[in-house]
Amino acid sequence: MRACLIPFSSNGKDMRDTKDTMKPFVEPESVAIIGATRKNGPGTYNLVENMLQFGYQGRVFPVNPQADEILGLRTFPRIGDIGQAIDLAVINLPRDLVLKGIRECAAVGVKAVIVVGQGFADADEKGKGLQEEMVAIARENGMRILGPNTLGILNAFRPFTTSFMPLSREKAPVGVICQSGIFFVGSGKFSGMMGKGIDIGNACDIGFVEALSYLGDDPDVRVIAIHMEGLMRGREFVSLASRITRKKPVVIFKTGQSEAGARAAVSHSGSMAGRYQIYKAALTQAGCTLITEDSQMRDAVRALLHLPPMRGNRIAVITVTGAGGIMATDALERYGLALAPLSPETLDPVARLSPPWMPLGNPLDLWPAVMKHGMQKVYPPALKALLADPAVDGVLCINVALRLPDYAFLDVSEELNQVVSGDKPVVAWLYGENSEGIGEEIEKEGKIIPFQTIEGAVWALSVLRQRQAYLERISGR
Amino acid sequence: MRACLIPFSSNGKDMRDTKDTMKPFVEPESVAIIGATRKNGPGTYNLVENMLQFGYQGRVFPVNPQADEILGLRTFPRIGDIGQAIDLAVINLPRDLVLKGIRECAAVGVKAVIVVGQGFADADEKGKGLQEEMVAIARENGMRILGPNTLGILNAFRPFTTSFMPLSREKAPVGVICQSGIFFVGSGKFSGMMGKGIDIGNACDIGFVEALSYLGDDPDVRVIAIHMEGLMRGREFVSLASRITRKKPVVIFKTGQSEAGARAAVSHSGSMAGRYQIYKAALTQAGCTLITEDSQMRDAVRALLHLPPMRGNRIAVITVTGAGGIMATDALERYGLALAPLSPETLDPVARLSPPWMPLGNPLDLWPAVMKHGMQKVYPPALKALLADPAVDGVLCINVALRLPDYAFLDVSEELNQVVSGDKPVVAWLYGENSEGIGEEIEKEGKIIPFQTIEGAVWALSVLRQRQAYLERISGR
Repeated sequence: MRACLIPFSSNGKDMRDTKDTMKPFVEPESVAIIGATRKNGPGTYNLVENMLQFGYQGRVFPVNPQADEILGLRTFPRIGDIGQAIDLAVINLPRDLVLKGIRECAAVGVKAVIVVGQGFADADEKGKGLQEEMVAIARENGMRILGPNTLGILNAFRPFTTSFMPLSREKAPVGVICQSGIFFVGSGKFSGMMGKGIDIGNACDIGFVEALSYLGDDPDVRVIAIHMEGLMRGREFVSLASRITRKKPVVIFKTGQSEAGARAAVSHSGSMAGRYQIYKAALTQAGCTLITEDSQMRDAVRALLHLPPMRGNRIAVITVTGAGGIMATDALERYGLALAPLSPETLDPVARLSPPWMPLGNPLDLWPAVMKHGMQKVYPPALKALLADPAVDGVLCINVALRLPDYAFLDVSEELNQVVSGDKPVVAWLYGENSEGIGEEIEKEGKIIPFQTIEGAVWALSVLRQRQAYLERISGR
Repeated sequence: MRACLIPFSSNGKDMRDTKDTMKPFVEPESVAIIGATRKNGPGTYNLVENMLQFGYQGRVFPVNPQADEILGLRTFPRIGDIGQAIDLAVINLPRDLVLKGIRECAAVGVKAVIVVGQGFADADEKGKGLQEEMVAIARENGMRILGPNTLGILNAFRPFTTSFMPLSREKAPVGVICQSGIFFVGSGKFSGMMGKGIDIGNACDIGFVEALSYLGDDPDVRVIAIHMEGLMRGREFVSLASRITRKKPVVIFKTGQSEAGARAAVSHSGSMAGRYQIYKAALTQAGCTLITEDSQMRDAVRALLHLPPMRGNRIAVITVTGAGGIMATDALERYGLALAPLSPETLDPVARLSPPWMPLGNPLDLWPAVMKHGMQKVYPPALKALLADPAVDGVLCINVALRLPDYAFLDVSEELNQVVSGDKPVVAWLYGENSEGIGEEIEKEGKIIPFQTIEGAVWALSVLRQRQAYLERISGR
């Protein structure tokens, strides 16, 4: 069944090893849309309309033999009629017309083609044959293909997209490589934010290697998040990943982990999912952060993007609820982290404000002191002391978040940010009716990162630790 | 160390076995607040103020020797000066004054007392002694004590609370038993909703047995969510739980699962956390739903509250994204569920609308059909056919949720609700910029329940299956 994807042939090697391979795809100056639709508005999935609304500033040439003009743009019967240099052709045709479109692109010397439609290795035997032929034409003509079965590209930095679904234009320093448009349209649920995206779809030609090579060297991108169903050229990818992870984090959500999931992957993107444990071992060894649940991508990306390295596994938990401290302690153990032993000097600022009967330790429960002296006098100095303790590698802050301005006296977002210097990671978990509002406030400076759950906050710290341990290992420290 | 909690003595047995024990606590007609504060407004944690704002309609008697009037209520120097029957006394005094307060309550025949403050078994040796003495006084006088170290009671049905923190008044059919105010103030993060709550705090007298007995027989409560640090009278509780779980679900978040977490529990509520695996086995055997992560309580409560029983473990996944279907398949395997085999008749409505090359199965990917015929024509009949298939025990719907009204053509919330008859559980996972808005819309009828993550949606189905398997086992089916 490996034949459903064509292994890369040697004659393309030079091209694919340079990040220039991806340039016409991600930042084209001119684009032809073969199969541009004349209809626009809701429900038409008009790719040209979406591209213009997204703010693309390059030249757009719709190709449709039945139209002279689409959305005010001169429209051509065939790509050959355009008569200008085309960096990228996007083929949006039913599968039976795609090979003809590709041949026409080859005839005018187009080197980069995106094939949007489904019905290839993701479908039946005929589709597999069409996909193989598509690749053969590309090879003969020095052309590269992204797809088929893809939303293509998102680039918020030099605004460009080939997606027919609406996407965010936020210039986030997060690059996404995926095999499904769900990571574009649903980026809020996965990477959380996305400034550049490459949907490799069935990955008939352009694959994880080219995409990672590009985003790995892209100064706009500080964290890379990958959705992977199947991986061809595994050794090459692992080798590349171990180079990239030295300079930026790579988070990988490998799906098709189960046997049934692996079978489903074949009929989604035609991918061979392979044995998960083998992938996991190799990719972890290469310094990648592997996740297993859909909520973890966002948590990992946020932690790796905003927080400093964590140089050990000793965590201080600072809390206004003993119960929350216990939950955090359970989670620390699950993820291989430990409670930092706190010195009397570290506990002193809280001890002086607590009733004499209050047992203080780690987790450090501030509540009796807060009841007596108020949040402002207690929480910020307590956090400051914890961060100054050399036995503490990272801090989890648990706090209550109630509606403002009534409960402004409990809100110490600003004061907490002031005591965080940025050399140790600080995560937070807030509870109460205003946890989202105050969470956004606290996150604004990018120093303290709140998470939805205690479990997620602690897991994020473990991701930081795992990454730092990797960096220390490879640098021989 | 077990001595830090006083085992229940035999002479109180009759009282504690009736649900009437809890009645004066949860639905008192008259309340004395011993140690009512004269200050009110932000930062004063004024319990009387909060009780009145919550809408309590019974008689409130503040007790404070330094005031004649608090918030317009006549205030008494001592409880003995009130001269009327008192159902419940709430003692809100520093720990050194609490025993005196309890003796005064005993002298006037008060049978139910809540001790709010900290500094007892949760603190030092002296605190443990005070707590033991408190219980001894109660035993001698036929008095019951809730706490110490507690927010006390929330009852949204006959509005009453002893919490000094603001709480929701939503009459939700969910009862909470906890050992920390975090489950009251942060109910949005845990049980999600809460119509009645009993915070047993250090559980010096009233414990899980009395609280579960009350909520178990309470017709306002359909699901019970429990936060448990330590459990005294374990056998009695397990026996009671196996009676209650026959009629309503009981979700338990046992914290202090780890060794370090168990140590932390001692200094939070003075609880002995015990060995988690022993708790887990016994409570699961009794039909309780045990959770391990803080996000799971809400998911379990929502599923058990709204969804019908799931009579087998065969799930159909209906999706507009193949990638989402694969993630769901992975999660199904993790939680002991399986993909239902779908008959050609079941697939027929989608097959007729899909391109001939589209491989159809389970997960059932609708996207090519949706592109051709629109969401309305495809998704509702597809779901209807799945629900009619006797090989399907439950359904996970994956759908895209974009902003309205621009993308109203993709929104089938209403139509999906119409095809759900309610005899099989249907859960949903939505992605896209409007997943929250459309999620709320789809949930309004309580037939399809959306979850934040694919993992959570699948896990919720497994909770339903686990519960139904338990009910079938005990009924000998």
